[in-house]
Amino acid sequence: MERVYANQLEESMLGRDVEVAGWVEDIRELGAIVFIIVRDVSGGIQVVAEPSMLTVNEGTKVTRQSSVRVRGRVQRSRSVHYPLEIRAEALTVYSIAKHPLPIDPTGRVSASLDARLDARALDLRNPSVAAIFKLRHHALQMIRRVLVEKGFMEVNTPKIIGSASEGGANLFRLTYFNNRQAYLAQSPQLYKEQLTLALDRVFEIASYYRAEKSHTTRHLSEFVSVDIEAAYMDADGVMRVAEELMVSLLRELKERCSRELSLLGSSIDVPSPPFPRITYMEAVEMLRKDHGISIEFGDDLSDHALKLLGESIKGFYFIVDWPTKLKPFYIHERDDDPNLSYSFDLQYGALELASGGKRLHDASRLRSRLVEQGLNPDDFRDHLKVFEWGMPPHAGWGLGLDRLMTVICNVKNVREVVLYPRDTERLNP
Amino acid sequence: MERVYANQLEESMLGRDVEVAGWVEDIRELGAIVFIIVRDVSGGIQVVAEPSMLTVNEGTKVTRQSSVRVRGRVQRSRSVHYPLEIRAEALTVYSIAKHPLPIDPTGRVSASLDARLDARALDLRNPSVAAIFKLRHHALQMIRRVLVEKGFMEVNTPKIIGSASEGGANLFRLTYFNNRQAYLAQSPQLYKEQLTLALDRVFEIASYYRAEKSHTTRHLSEFVSVDIEAAYMDADGVMRVAEELMVSLLRELKERCSRELSLLGSSIDVPSPPFPRITYMEAVEMLRKDHGISIEFGDDLSDHALKLLGESIKGFYFIVDWPTKLKPFYIHERDDDPNLSYSFDLQYGALELASGGKRLHDASRLRSRLVEQGLNPDDFRDHLKVFEWGMPPHAGWGLGLDRLMTVICNVKNVREVVLYPRDTERLNP
Repeated sequence: MERVYANQLEESMLGRDVEVAGWVEDIRELGAIVFIIVRDVSGGIQVVAEPSMLTVNEGTKVTRQSSVRVRGRVQRSRSVHYPLEIRAEALTVYSIAKHPLPIDPTGRVSASLDARLDARALDLRNPSVAAIFKLRHHALQMIRRVLVEKGFMEVNTPKIIGSASEGGANLFRLTYFNNRQAYLAQSPQLYKEQLTLALDRVFEIASYYRAEKSHTTRHLSEFVSVDIEAAYMDADGVMRVAEELMVSLLRELKERCSRELSLLGSSIDVPSPPFPRITYMEAVEMLRKDHGISIEFGDDLSDHALKLLGESIKGFYFIVDWPTKLKPFYIHERDDDPNLSYSFDLQYGALELASGGKRLHDASRLRSRLVEQGLNPDDFRDHLKVFEWGMPPHAGWGLGLDRLMTVICNVKNVREVVLYPRDTERLNP
Repeated sequence: MERVYANQLEESMLGRDVEVAGWVEDIRELGAIVFIIVRDVSGGIQVVAEPSMLTVNEGTKVTRQSSVRVRGRVQRSRSVHYPLEIRAEALTVYSIAKHPLPIDPTGRVSASLDARLDARALDLRNPSVAAIFKLRHHALQMIRRVLVEKGFMEVNTPKIIGSASEGGANLFRLTYFNNRQAYLAQSPQLYKEQLTLALDRVFEIASYYRAEKSHTTRHLSEFVSVDIEAAYMDADGVMRVAEELMVSLLRELKERCSRELSLLGSSIDVPSPPFPRITYMEAVEMLRKDHGISIEFGDDLSDHALKLLGESIKGFYFIVDWPTKLKPFYIHERDDDPNLSYSFDLQYGALELASGGKRLHDASRLRSRLVEQGLNPDDFRDHLKVFEWGMPPHAGWGLGLDRLMTVICNVKNVREVVLYPRDTERLNP
């Protein structure tokens, strides 16, 4: 018999025998009958059973959260919540949940985030928690679809790298074969740039690693990044890709995942392109005039400064034209002012979601920039040589998927949207 | 002006001004005019230009493989290969390729795989090489689409793990924060099993790591695996998923990527389900009878044995019911014979593509199996506790994407289908 999920039960099945499987959410014995709520990933199902069915071998009784399968006939119910129910003909108990459980997955009793993460598999039985990961699943499919439609080719670049690509201070190190020093990639930056030489437009969605000691609600040691890089595009071009991606993604999530969004109390607006663009200099000026904060040219915008900016410019916006020296060596300086660069951050309020820009494509300028930033061009030999093979001008960005999901899911802590987060403290489960 | 790719040039554009960008593949000066073949990721374009356009500043002349942009009018050509051509009005040289180049990306002069991998970005300008990665791109999209249609939810599990999940001999080690020992995941096995507790069906396509010293044409230290795990499915159920996935994937690639397949001389047949299934015992018997090879029950099938099997059973087939002790601790033994297991390998000839089976879902049996296999249950504390929260029966498989791509692309060495392969020798570029 074919298995039916909770959200597939419908009027047309009345009188038919079906099979459902999931976990026991609730048991109410009412004399000669017992009402069981069986929940699966898609929803709850009311089952009417005989009390004897609750007893497994050796007199053990099935407990809440145990895994079961029910075969029975679909009938109308008197319940307000469940218009249809299943009259059980057979109930198979696959495994008994031991009590007490570490957390209550129905969400009636709240638990700390740490307790929930320690029991993450169980935590996911909470429909509000599962909603986050359904949204994440849909977001991944939609992001790829939009990028594929725009001509980007999916690539897989290596995560074990032989040289520290952007300095190396914050890289995890490992010992490779023959005692060679290797690192875990922090981004696919150099590889995706190289690939524009022949593949024109590439994207990758993968896990990256940052050994930074910061412990905040928006940093993780392992995070998922959406990266694009495009030949013959400039910063404006890839900013438009980001805008169109955000608009399509949010519009479609609103249409297709309204139940999940409302479970999470998320009511994010679909933004209209173009998103506001303010230059770094304008941001500095706004902060001085409106908040009396003085920022030296070339200093980064602090968390506090971004918070104030995010309060003035709500939703999505770009901060563009950052000082060249604030940005990595591969960013292209502005033609009209080499102290500024063709760079941007995509913000949502105070939160930086993505960072990108036009890249240098001239080998000798790239080499001098490395020196200026205190890096050794010899360490970038494999990368620099590519720029002598007819490198096209190119631009791209990296978007923090986990951060984007906090915005979509209306949660504060990035750990909420990651199944098994890794941070300075947490390495398990 | 909107950029046009080579494969977008068509009759309807005759007389229109367009812009194309790519690299110079060929230059032929014929007196007062010069023919330039500009290639982009989608194909070649014939450009007719004035000889003076070839000269960049300071008298430098544009070289083959340099990056250029051409603006001009579309006109009919007399060439056999290019029915349309562009009469250049402006030619912008973005960067000059320095000669000699490390390899010839037109493929006219062949190079060793090592030389090609050292110059991978340039190697990708060879249309036959690019074809591999276009097929890989399409395969990724199609695999996900099939799995999503079958109700699998995409997940991202951690690659930095706190305990050595399946023994640990072949894991890369790294030092985590506070000097804790961590490892790079070899598979998402334990996580994907845990996730069936609530998410029912999950899949993940990601990079994994194996520190094994073997240097063969089918092993890599970093590889991409397609993993699925499904609650309430048995081995047969997930084998059917694998079959249907292979059939849909190959059918669609044949339809949509025939040009790439023929560039690679690949003429793979779309298989019909069900694929042949032979048991381990039948395989042992075949090898004894047909080839005089004697294999002790419980011994693995050697490369040589698989080669002989692959010669008898062509194409895709399953080897099922492996001895329990040959398989990892989490594999479910057969109910009718605990020495055998509900396990399978998906083979293509001699090549193992995927491995999977039904898993144990009973905490105490899982614990005893760990002990039997010489592993310490304490090291699996975080994992075992999940099995006391009402674990559903479940099954799944892991499929080596890189190996599958060698079959699809008709190449022998797995390094051919990976952009930047990692093996015992190779850590760069």
